[in-house]
Amino acid sequence: MSLVIVGSIALDTIETSTRSVSDVPGGSTSYCALAASYFFPPQIVGVVGEDFPESVISLFKDHHIKLEGLVIEAGKTFRWGGRYAENFDDRTTLFTDLNVFANFNPTLPEAYKSASHVLLANIHPGLQHHVLDQLDSQAFVVLDTMNLWIDTAHDELISLMKRINMLVINDEESRMLTGERNYGKAAQKLRAMGPEWVVIKKGQHGALLFHDDRLFTVPGLVLDEVVDPTGAGDTFVGALIGYLAQSKDLSFDNMKLALVFGSVLASFCVEALSVNGISYLEESDLEARYDEFVIMSQF
Amino acid sequence: MSLVIVGSIALDTIETSTRSVSDVPGGSTSYCALAASYFFPPQIVGVVGEDFPESVISLFKDHHIKLEGLVIEAGKTFRWGGRYAENFDDRTTLFTDLNVFANFNPTLPEAYKSASHVLLANIHPGLQHHVLDQLDSQAFVVLDTMNLWIDTAHDELISLMKRINMLVINDEESRMLTGERNYGKAAQKLRAMGPEWVVIKKGQHGALLFHDDRLFTVPGLVLDEVVDPTGAGDTFVGALIGYLAQSKDLSFDNMKLALVFGSVLASFCVEALSVNGISYLEESDLEARYDEFVIMSQF
Repeated sequence: MSLVIVGSIALDTIETSTRSVSDVPGGSTSYCALAASYFFPPQIVGVVGEDFPESVISLFKDHHIKLEGLVIEAGKTFRWGGRYAENFDDRTTLFTDLNVFANFNPTLPEAYKSASHVLLANIHPGLQHHVLDQLDSQAFVVLDTMNLWIDTAHDELISLMKRINMLVINDEESRMLTGERNYGKAAQKLRAMGPEWVVIKKGQHGALLFHDDRLFTVPGLVLDEVVDPTGAGDTFVGALIGYLAQSKDLSFDNMKLALVFGSVLASFCVEALSVNGISYLEESDLEARYDEFVIMSQF
Repeated sequence: MSLVIVGSIALDTIETSTRSVSDVPGGSTSYCALAASYFFPPQIVGVVGEDFPESVISLFKDHHIKLEGLVIEAGKTFRWGGRYAENFDDRTTLFTDLNVFANFNPTLPEAYKSASHVLLANIHPGLQHHVLDQLDSQAFVVLDTMNLWIDTAHDELISLMKRINMLVINDEESRMLTGERNYGKAAQKLRAMGPEWVVIKKGQHGALLFHDDRLFTVPGLVLDEVVDPTGAGDTFVGALIGYLAQSKDLSFDNMKLALVFGSVLASFCVEALSVNGISYLEESDLEARYDEFVIMSQF
């Protein structure tokens, strides 16, 4: 078993109604890989600039994240800035400085090409195609995407759908792609586009898993305080595929657990700024939070 | 054990993007009592005009709903009309003709005064106080209300909160009453106002139950088609208290089941116009839908 994660690595500036930080670790790969690492050590592909903090590289190494595919290029790391409205109802992008990420062309090291599990974290669908082109193996492929690509790279995204096993998407993106507001009908249309598994994320209301004629729903945890929702979706899908790689089981019942562990990690993610909420967890933290999901949803 | 339900009985005009009906059974009591009747025969208190259809009286009787507290007055029955936007995102009230309901002053028949369970379905908080004043017993009291009373009868509603055991409220009303958007904090404030049990309904996203430091969440069912959401909230709380009266058990674990059965009945309610979805169910229908909730949420 091996797990490859390809996406963005960034330094983020995050402003909330009560807090503001800059140049903190961000990007889809950072969240996905840290979350996955609690279950299975992922191999990442990405690019950063020479200014990328050694402390973050150390954090990745502490989490047994394999960095053979991480390229350090002359220039500056991708930077993204966002501001959240009070109550996190809305997010405004303050700036997007691609820097070395502008010419990112993900190249899989030889050792990655036989991956059993691949997470195409949120980057341009053209790059996601290119990752799949390099695989020697029949991997279980999970795709994450965003509204921007649905708008600007629609055809590449649609052709990508035929090459993946699972699509993870939020409710707004699901409506954009299918024109359907009804979750069941939207999932049916999404599955007809290719993936046999579809997960629709509903933010604080949890997530829905669709497969064949089966449905599973995981609730959102009711948290006392949300500090920073950045990366919660990446964290969810990272933990989900990490759990799948660890458990080597693609049954519906095991996929339920993968969604629950995705939700467990995502709930930790939003409780702290940047990746702090998912950087220093103990196994006992995960077990305690898992137990909360059990108590909250099992009858 | 005996269960008293007090609320409104109306004839509704309902317009959706695809359907339109007038003078169909409606009002909080109609939905609550029909839903409760699948678990325990309720005693209702209400008023209708001489024009109230005999067929609806027969429907109530077929459901073993006890009508001693139903007054038929000279004049016309309360009429309400509402129009739903496409996708049911929004509802506009077309008219509210109180008619005989304008002078409704709920009087409990002697046989009702020793009730073990009382559902104060959605009517003016002053009338809900008056119902409690007539009780001889220490009943388990569940309160339903609406945004109108939070605005126009705020103080009476607040004093009522000290006299009830459970509040059932939707997320918008919860925000109005507490100023809190965070469900956990809102529930804490609502419980501090009086009720030891608080249920926050989230529409298609299900419902949350708060008690002491415990939380339970029931998911919303993913339905192929919503035909008419009128009365879904009343149906939920009616089935909930009916199940409690039947099971004679106020443990947290049993309350979880009461919420699940509330959701089961509410899911049938929205699948048909008016009370049609909850008028002709068999025990096997309830069991099959309950099983869907189990499959969907148990891991």
